[in-house]
Amino acid sequence: MTSPTTTPATTQDGIRDHLWMHMANHKHLFEGGTTPVITRGEGHHIYDDAGRGYIDGLAGLFVVQVGHGREEIAQTAYEQSKKLGFMPLWSYAHEPAVQLAERLAGYAPGDLNRVFFTSGGGDSVESAFKLAKNFFKLQGKPGKHKVISRAVAYHGTPHGALTITSLPGLRNQFEPLVPGALKVPNTNFYRADARFDGDEKAFGRWAADRIEEQILFEGADSVAAVFLEPVQNAGGCFPPPPGYFERVREICDEYDVLLVSDETICAFGRVGSMFACNDFGYVPDIITCAKGLTSGYAPLGAMIASDRLFEPFGRGGETFGHGYTFGGHPVACAVAMTNLDIFEREGLNDRVQENAPAFRSTLEKLLALDIVGDVRGEGYFYGIELVKDKATKESFTDEESERILKGFVTNKLWEEGLYCRADDRGDPVIQLSPPLTCGPAEFEEMEAILRSVLTQAQELL
Amino acid sequence: MTSPTTTPATTQDGIRDHLWMHMANHKHLFEGGTTPVITRGEGHHIYDDAGRGYIDGLAGLFVVQVGHGREEIAQTAYEQSKKLGFMPLWSYAHEPAVQLAERLAGYAPGDLNRVFFTSGGGDSVESAFKLAKNFFKLQGKPGKHKVISRAVAYHGTPHGALTITSLPGLRNQFEPLVPGALKVPNTNFYRADARFDGDEKAFGRWAADRIEEQILFEGADSVAAVFLEPVQNAGGCFPPPPGYFERVREICDEYDVLLVSDETICAFGRVGSMFACNDFGYVPDIITCAKGLTSGYAPLGAMIASDRLFEPFGRGGETFGHGYTFGGHPVACAVAMTNLDIFEREGLNDRVQENAPAFRSTLEKLLALDIVGDVRGEGYFYGIELVKDKATKESFTDEESERILKGFVTNKLWEEGLYCRADDRGDPVIQLSPPLTCGPAEFEEMEAILRSVLTQAQELL
Repeated sequence: MTSPTTTPATTQDGIRDHLWMHMANHKHLFEGGTTPVITRGEGHHIYDDAGRGYIDGLAGLFVVQVGHGREEIAQTAYEQSKKLGFMPLWSYAHEPAVQLAERLAGYAPGDLNRVFFTSGGGDSVESAFKLAKNFFKLQGKPGKHKVISRAVAYHGTPHGALTITSLPGLRNQFEPLVPGALKVPNTNFYRADARFDGDEKAFGRWAADRIEEQILFEGADSVAAVFLEPVQNAGGCFPPPPGYFERVREICDEYDVLLVSDETICAFGRVGSMFACNDFGYVPDIITCAKGLTSGYAPLGAMIASDRLFEPFGRGGETFGHGYTFGGHPVACAVAMTNLDIFEREGLNDRVQENAPAFRSTLEKLLALDIVGDVRGEGYFYGIELVKDKATKESFTDEESERILKGFVTNKLWEEGLYCRADDRGDPVIQLSPPLTCGPAEFEEMEAILRSVLTQAQELL
Repeated sequence: MTSPTTTPATTQDGIRDHLWMHMANHKHLFEGGTTPVITRGEGHHIYDDAGRGYIDGLAGLFVVQVGHGREEIAQTAYEQSKKLGFMPLWSYAHEPAVQLAERLAGYAPGDLNRVFFTSGGGDSVESAFKLAKNFFKLQGKPGKHKVISRAVAYHGTPHGALTITSLPGLRNQFEPLVPGALKVPNTNFYRADARFDGDEKAFGRWAADRIEEQILFEGADSVAAVFLEPVQNAGGCFPPPPGYFERVREICDEYDVLLVSDETICAFGRVGSMFACNDFGYVPDIITCAKGLTSGYAPLGAMIASDRLFEPFGRGGETFGHGYTFGGHPVACAVAMTNLDIFEREGLNDRVQENAPAFRSTLEKLLALDIVGDVRGEGYFYGIELVKDKATKESFTDEESERILKGFVTNKLWEEGLYCRADDRGDPVIQLSPPLTCGPAEFEEMEAILRSVLTQAQELL
């Protein structure tokens, strides 16, 4: 994207000539365009190299739960780096990892007591996929290796996680992927078939039953796991309909298929609890998480598994042949502990639960605009779907998405001081996921900028 | 493994009940065994929770090039965490990533000028695999997706990297993997066929030509890339025979197959230069690296690609649909810069080049023992292969490997104060890869412990 601010030539030269940005188009850099360079963060704000501040409506990338610039976390990073800056968990242990494993097991529901650390969300999903296959092979069911996930869902970019990711645009350049990935509908109630006649529960039941249908299509002895986010991110924050996860859990139990709750985004207060499965009242077999675990101050992820899944690798004496050099890094684990201390001391989860209705109602004011078709989400995690025609829910054409969403809205929001996400991997949406320290004042500030920009955007239709 | 020291019950309880260690067997923990808990590091030493010190003969896990406890790196982690503790590289940039990208491009040979950051070595390999497929699809050759790697080689654990990894024991529990992984022999000259009659160059030519053979078996239009470590780690440090990489480069050019130099272990002074392809005089199309980039003080990896590979994604206007939330983390990039400052200020690469002959000759003294069949490696990276019969090169049986290598040698080395690696993924080897700050005094210390333990071990045969 193009920044409206001026950046010193040297940094822009470095970006143009040497940096390969992620999920990014670089062409404009060869046509005189520039890249925003972020130099510092403080509380709810990030600042560019011209000194301009932006409200961080995305918490970095669904990450910085406690806000930027926490001296206390920096201090922990200093102390742990000096004391023990690296040691792998390959048959050895260090106290930060042990303490954090105990703590995460304490937050997790049911008997999800076993913590395998990774270096990020995609690798947590990889780990869950590998565990599911290994577990069933050890049960004498080597054919039980297929995985189910939902349309438009994003679960990461390494090959295994990408197999589970359901965005054709992210997959087609990298085929062939891992065989055996099955897809089912997501819970996009805004675009649910008219026959559900606004009955969200019936729609949820139908969506959950499509998982059973896939299992029956393929045979339960060939399916290992279902990967679901509590609230699906890609597509723009689809919450689970009432009864959805209850029915999914029932199906998984009936066919001995593992339920993986991919909480890379939803865990650590994003919906209001440490783990979002607790918010929605279900107990998965595995939780995958990352991002908010350290509020992004250090790379870390985790796969948390049930006692049943660990048993063959515990007393059973089998070795899970999987690992990451940097998984459970001592500095990252220490940083996570301080981050979670802040959560508890400042009551951040309670804060989200208390303020979530205000966040929702503030954003719902945008429904007054013709261009806003839907506002949906939970906790501090919202998607605003843009439409061309509110009555018919007609979406943008590709040209409109390119011109209005990417060409205008993204740049204009940035220019007016709001960093958030405009995404068209599904239908065009703007996503908000601010630091959990935000409150009504910041909700108003974000809404005002959105209102201004979206009002201008609808003139371009 | 079992530690000879006493650890407070609470930490051991935490490990037994909640921590899932990597590549580890946990059974002994349920039978009264314990896990070594490392609490701090200083220079060449790590210390356990009983205060006992061990010489770090493995640099953590081929990682801690500058040694443990560097206050200067801790200070950088503090300052960057406070200033900007997180920002993704998803269409945005931050100075630490730009500076590091420029610096790495400067160290890399040829026109390898483009740096894509990841969060570790396995994900760097994933990234190279994905780039190879994407690049050829954009060239109108979608069938060019297969990858070649060498027997016993380890390239990481996410599904794509695991496909390239050639250790059946690490793969078989996770099938099916990504289709199209082809295998060729490695450069284990110690166990080369007798017909080569000690002619390493002829053996190297044969090994390189096996890559061409695979390409011809499959058809060049189906092969995207060859993944090779400069010195192969798994199996115990196999250096390239003279002329090997020259011939590989020739083959890759002839069939338009990308040469990926997986330098996760060998880069950053391990062999004596910033990138080991420079040590061996070849220019790959892609370098993958991680570990020593930060000396392990923060999780970070990188894929460095040639201008030719970036071109379609630069001026060409295509988007490489790949990314990691934590790839190129600002604190990790800042830490890498300070780490590389230390390299330059202390002349660590020169130090390795100067001391490597002394390291080799000190370790070669172990060849006087009957149990030591081979000592091989380069720079500060050595493998010591254990044998049952030196004359015939007869290796251990599985029982002997379990009883002597894992049951005795590993524990005894630890007990006598040396942390290193005893590995039997190929033939049984002990691997040494100390911090680059080590010198003759530490070589002597490590050799003395190895001599003592291996002398005892050969009595058990």
